[in-house]
Amino acid sequence: MKKKVVLAFSGGLDTSFCAKYLSEEKGYEVYTAIANTGGFSPDELKIVEEKAYKLGAVKHVALDVTQEYYEKSIKYMVFGNVLRNGTYPISVSSERIFQAIAIINYAKEIGADAVAHGSTGAGNDQVRFDLTFDVLAPEIEIITPTRDMILTREYEIDYLKRHGYEADFTKMEYSINKGLWGTSIGGKETLKSNQTLPEEAYPSQLTKKESEILTIDFEQGEIAGVNGKKYTNKIEAINKIEEITSAFAIGRDMHIGDTIIGIKGRVGFEAAAPLVIINAHKMLEKHTLTKWQQYWKEQLGNWYGMFLHEAQYLEPVMRDIEAFLISSQENVTGTVTIKLMPYHYVLVGVDSDFDLMKAEFGEYGEINKAWSADDAKGFTKIYSIPTKVFHSVQKKNGK
Amino acid sequence: MKKKVVLAFSGGLDTSFCAKYLSEEKGYEVYTAIANTGGFSPDELKIVEEKAYKLGAVKHVALDVTQEYYEKSIKYMVFGNVLRNGTYPISVSSERIFQAIAIINYAKEIGADAVAHGSTGAGNDQVRFDLTFDVLAPEIEIITPTRDMILTREYEIDYLKRHGYEADFTKMEYSINKGLWGTSIGGKETLKSNQTLPEEAYPSQLTKKESEILTIDFEQGEIAGVNGKKYTNKIEAINKIEEITSAFAIGRDMHIGDTIIGIKGRVGFEAAAPLVIINAHKMLEKHTLTKWQQYWKEQLGNWYGMFLHEAQYLEPVMRDIEAFLISSQENVTGTVTIKLMPYHYVLVGVDSDFDLMKAEFGEYGEINKAWSADDAKGFTKIYSIPTKVFHSVQKKNGK
Amino acid sequence: MKKKVVLAFSGGLDTSFCAKYLSEEKGYEVYTAIANTGGFSPDELKIVEEKAYKLGAVKHVALDVTQEYYEKSIKYMVFGNVLRNGTYPISVSSERIFQAIAIINYAKEIGADAVAHGSTGAGNDQVRFDLTFDVLAPEIEIITPTRDMILTREYEIDYLKRHGYEADFTKMEYSINKGLWGTSIGGKETLKSNQTLPEEAYPSQLTKKESEILTIDFEQGEIAGVNGKKYTNKIEAINKIEEITSAFAIGRDMHIGDTIIGIKGRVGFEAAAPLVIINAHKMLEKHTLTKWQQYWKEQLGNWYGMFLHEAQYLEPVMRDIEAFLISSQENVTGTVTIKLMPYHYVLVGVDSDFDLMKAEFGEYGEINKAWSADDAKGFTKIYSIPTKVFHSVQKKNGK
Amino acid sequence: MKKKVVLAFSGGLDTSFCAKYLSEEKGYEVYTAIANTGGFSPDELKIVEEKAYKLGAVKHVALDVTQEYYEKSIKYMVFGNVLRNGTYPISVSSERIFQAIAIINYAKEIGADAVAHGSTGAGNDQVRFDLTFDVLAPEIEIITPTRDMILTREYEIDYLKRHGYEADFTKMEYSINKGLWGTSIGGKETLKSNQTLPEEAYPSQLTKKESEILTIDFEQGEIAGVNGKKYTNKIEAINKIEEITSAFAIGRDMHIGDTIIGIKGRVGFEAAAPLVIINAHKMLEKHTLTKWQQYWKEQLGNWYGMFLHEAQYLEPVMRDIEAFLISSQENVTGTVTIKLMPYHYVLVGVDSDFDLMKAEFGEYGEINKAWSADDAKGFTKIYSIPTKVFHSVQKKNGK
Repeated sequence: MKKKVVLAFSGGLDTSFCAKYLSEEKGYEVYTAIANTGGFSPDELKIVEEKAYKLGAVKHVALDVTQEYYEKSIKYMVFGNVLRNGTYPISVSSERIFQAIAIINYAKEIGADAVAHGSTGAGNDQVRFDLTFDVLAPEIEIITPTRDMILTREYEIDYLKRHGYEADFTKMEYSINKGLWGTSIGGKETLKSNQTLPEEAYPSQLTKKESEILTIDFEQGEIAGVNGKKYTNKIEAINKIEEITSAFAIGRDMHIGDTIIGIKGRVGFEAAAPLVIINAHKMLEKHTLTKWQQYWKEQLGNWYGMFLHEAQYLEPVMRDIEAFLISSQENVTGTVTIKLMPYHYVLVGVDSDFDLMKAEFGEYGEINKAWSADDAKGFTKIYSIPTKVFHSVQKKNGK
Repeated sequence: MKKKVVLAFSGGLDTSFCAKYLSEEKGYEVYTAIANTGGFSPDELKIVEEKAYKLGAVKHVALDVTQEYYEKSIKYMVFGNVLRNGTYPISVSSERIFQAIAIINYAKEIGADAVAHGSTGAGNDQVRFDLTFDVLAPEIEIITPTRDMILTREYEIDYLKRHGYEADFTKMEYSINKGLWGTSIGGKETLKSNQTLPEEAYPSQLTKKESEILTIDFEQGEIAGVNGKKYTNKIEAINKIEEITSAFAIGRDMHIGDTIIGIKGRVGFEAAAPLVIINAHKMLEKHTLTKWQQYWKEQLGNWYGMFLHEAQYLEPVMRDIEAFLISSQENVTGTVTIKLMPYHYVLVGVDSDFDLMKAEFGEYGEINKAWSADDAKGFTKIYSIPTKVFHSVQKKNGK
Repeated sequence: MKKKVVLAFSGGLDTSFCAKYLSEEKGYEVYTAIANTGGFSPDELKIVEEKAYKLGAVKHVALDVTQEYYEKSIKYMVFGNVLRNGTYPISVSSERIFQAIAIINYAKEIGADAVAHGSTGAGNDQVRFDLTFDVLAPEIEIITPTRDMILTREYEIDYLKRHGYEADFTKMEYSINKGLWGTSIGGKETLKSNQTLPEEAYPSQLTKKESEILTIDFEQGEIAGVNGKKYTNKIEAINKIEEITSAFAIGRDMHIGDTIIGIKGRVGFEAAAPLVIINAHKMLEKHTLTKWQQYWKEQLGNWYGMFLHEAQYLEPVMRDIEAFLISSQENVTGTVTIKLMPYHYVLVGVDSDFDLMKAEFGEYGEINKAWSADDAKGFTKIYSIPTKVFHSVQKKNGK
Repeated sequence: MKKKVVLAFSGGLDTSFCAKYLSEEKGYEVYTAIANTGGFSPDELKIVEEKAYKLGAVKHVALDVTQEYYEKSIKYMVFGNVLRNGTYPISVSSERIFQAIAIINYAKEIGADAVAHGSTGAGNDQVRFDLTFDVLAPEIEIITPTRDMILTREYEIDYLKRHGYEADFTKMEYSINKGLWGTSIGGKETLKSNQTLPEEAYPSQLTKKESEILTIDFEQGEIAGVNGKKYTNKIEAINKIEEITSAFAIGRDMHIGDTIIGIKGRVGFEAAAPLVIINAHKMLEKHTLTKWQQYWKEQLGNWYGMFLHEAQYLEPVMRDIEAFLISSQENVTGTVTIKLMPYHYVLVGVDSDFDLMKAEFGEYGEINKAWSADDAKGFTKIYSIPTKVFHSVQKKNGK
């Protein structure tokens, strides 16, 4: 009986080669699977399926994990205001993890002997796949032909042609990786330190010239409405916000960071909805959370983002951080108003029943009922003490 | 013999009242002093001086501490990429500390019995003045008529008029506080949670419509050149960058944060140069520092900004953080290119001999000389271990 | 109609004076209340009650909040391994908060106009009472005769005598503050920096000379058994452990720390059970938690302890930290064996189904099935990359 | 011409095998080197040298890096109060790094083609050697016969015998690794979770029964005197303290932690001097540093210890942390008194001109000149505000 392998299949050159290679050269029954975290349309999935069968797959499945991806990742990235190195919403990297989980669970379900992916030995994705597979099913073998054989594009195209498979494998000038939580863009500029992507490299182009007001409702940190319309399906809400905001050509930037492998890398991205959502959410938190809640959320959110990026989603500390984040969102409820303009936007303000600025305590800049001038003087006198003691000791020691 | 008081004097209504009140009602010899941290022009200082003498000051001095303010504060705010709550370059609050230090040192120098300031009991500045005075000269009495008597503007204007002093005390629609490191703007919108400042409230208006390239050279974290021209005087460099960037109406935002007193407050600001400098510096660091240097810098920089904002500049931990920051800047040398456009800008890239991305180790996305596919597999196998052990224990326990 | 005041009453000199003073001089109906967090026996409570009525209290209540104190504080201090400045289990200070909460809730319940406590203006307790009262019932007035009038012991004793109340108010050489979670000890040595408490100052003295084995069972971080006997009542378990361990004169130390007011203070303490429980719990965590769970627990636990100590229990970030801590305890289940000896103890080891050291991955020091020599070499090669890149750049720049 | 290899040589079975194997089987000229960080006596070094030549080494050197080890590592471990997982002074692991640096520098100096070490593929030391060699001399090949061939003790002994080399390779019941900063002890108990080392496993046994007073003088964080005698040579001071304290059988514990490889490991240790020095130093800091200096030192010190343990000494963030630590020690000057007793010790107290507790501000527990009752009330009123605002908002929302 032939051995079964589940291949993480996208229809691109590397995974097409793997599909053919694993059945032809290695004698596997190849089960192809694509895990959709919201980046693929039904039409795109249909095309992937056709390719799979054309390449000789015994069976092809499209695993829809969009909802799970939202519940287990996007939600927490919003709670944690996760922007890696201050800018990058971890667009594609977080999706890989949930794709890997879906693939390995499918492999376990059908009793596969092996699981395969098409990542090379250069980047982060190999680690995300290997680690997730290995942690969740150490008994299943991992096969990575592309990484092991270090093949050229030409070799792969030729191999496929020789085995009767032809497709358009033209290399695009910019490699685009589209997902629910943003699109990453690689190109010749991202390989250099001193250049940025040209306007035309971005998939979304400016189509709106007039400013527009957008409102986002949050309920306990989650998106609950867009422009006054309620959304129970969070994916739809995100897609709606993306549709509205991407027309303004915002949310573009360059991520410069450390790969899991340890070298520095640069990647362009466009993530209008994620950036607007996170920044709106953060502004709402400035009004509804205390200083120290924000302080600790920032540290834990940063760590959460780093670990998610670096394939550590299954580390148990992530569950502990999630518990913290859920607790912190209890009062993060309200509406944020954003003014969208070409290439930029302004966070106008928030309306929230939990706004700590609206308390009857009076207003910033106005002396008020909550304390007197003498209270303020007493406060400062005592607030000064540690530093005052230190300086008096310095003086005594002639410093 | 009359007692001497040094009054921190700006020429505004509150300090004008104090000047008159302290001599007329309290019988002090009033020495007025204005500490300039770079926000005042010679002409403005001249006007303040004239007002002081008109109000009966025995002596008026303008203490120029711009250089000291740069060396002891701005430099570290750049090293630490200090943006309070992710946005605010602590524009005015950091200046207050150095003004307070200059004032109290002057008071000690002339043997003053008391020192006075015009802050109310509502905000942060009273704490900055009181604490700094009290720490550096606990033997000198602090007098704060405005805070203690809770006077109305009308009363103060009337009092001054009755004592023969008239000036234009018309309240502006927006209170503007201009400094070297940014301008803060208060107005009716900043007292609400759901509004932002209108375009016209910002002192700098858009005057450039065409995009422009700006380059900033950094040497060990400090600005060393602008558009190819060397600057040894950092103040001039900052002013030059402000001149160039403010024409694009960038660097505007709203700070929502916690006052030292503990209530939430909002303040608008415009800080084109500080934001462009900090973000350019941060990008250079992404290329020249390791991941963990950036990680710790972010935490220490945040704390430094918080303590500076909250009048804790004299706390000794600040000196320890400064030592860390200086050490971290050893290799932060290079040129950053920024593209300026109306209302927004793009960080194009960096050129640096210390760029960790240019090492011969090869390029992101390319398999390379530094490691093999087997190395990557071995790495991932071991990198997985802690999580793999955890999940195997979970499984064993039926979880 | 007379106004009602609730007085936090311990039967000591200060609160006895307050009881009399508030009714005689201020015309209040005095309701005395003692909040027991586990430090008082029924007999002691009876004596306090008698004193209260003798001093003219309209009504006296003993509020038992031991269980609440465990559930809302001790539990989390164990989860977080809370030892302030590395040594002090925040013995008495954490109890104050729950006493304050019980008192103010009682005041609200009976519709009191005011609430009073006997703390002076020198220490931490005034802040714990004032803040808790003010936060939970800002509408109720706070009265503090001892603090406001700065009375001497002699004056208070004499005043009480003149009003017909006599009791033994002899000042002890060491002031002892006994609670469920440890006993604090002040004396002449704690006012100096260079002395420690003499043996006889400690309430518990060495009574066991032979070593003894103690086992503590933990279930999800909570004590579940002692020496093989199950305990559902955690208070009883703590008391049992205290009984066993205190006979060995362990858990003694000196806390040197910063008061809320900002000055340094020293206090001796004896807390055999808390220290043994926390250290045993921590050892169990070393076996059952991952490195990064321990890393973040340590930081959050430290902060939790600091805020609890500094009267910030009601700050909402504390609830968020508690959520993290609960999540982290999921697998902290097992038995810890401790060897008790005169003046010291040794943590022998742990038995746990969740022990991450027992996984089939093989043993420390032995090459094993989980990875090969080549994996280790590949791992190290890639683990080295960031530092290697840095040093190659240094070399290139002649450093 | 033969190729040169530098072998890190201890005279033990593994490195003896390597010496013979590299010359006999691989045809290298073998240069043996032992790097002494203070753990070896001249006599021990002499024996190692004799073994080296007997095994056919072309040349043997003993590299003394004790002073460098102190200056670049111990000093900072004391400044940072480094105790891994709260207990372990990183006794042996920190020494390995400096041994590796000395070995690779020697290899560069003599123009070696390769460098060899005898570590297995199981533990931390392989990573410490590989990484340090690779970072400092990527051009020199690393050879590890023991790791690559996974040989048994029997095989190695037999191989050496066959090649004419015999020595006493009896395996000891406990593997002892002695260094300047403590001794680690492995044995059958350390492979289990539920056992601890027996008394007799510890190299130092109790020899003093009567208590003794020890004083340590610190100057800016460094040891400057012991029992009143000045020491300019810090190594001598440490050895003196070890001699005094080890007679009391203190400083023993079990370290349970994560290896670099990711599995949990346990190791016993005895480190009387390091523990007494660190705890004395920490107590002096409690008196001379502010709360926030201690807060940040603790975090940075923990990280420093973790990175040192995990072979990351050459990461540049370590230099930045060292800069912080140096700055923090400015006032850590004074004398600490310790009472030594069998199996335990008590930190009696400190005498320091920089003691922040001795400031004229008055004493803990006493109302004093620095503030009034009204100041304390005003302070608390304002200190309460954030939490008070939060709870008022909660109440308004019916929570």
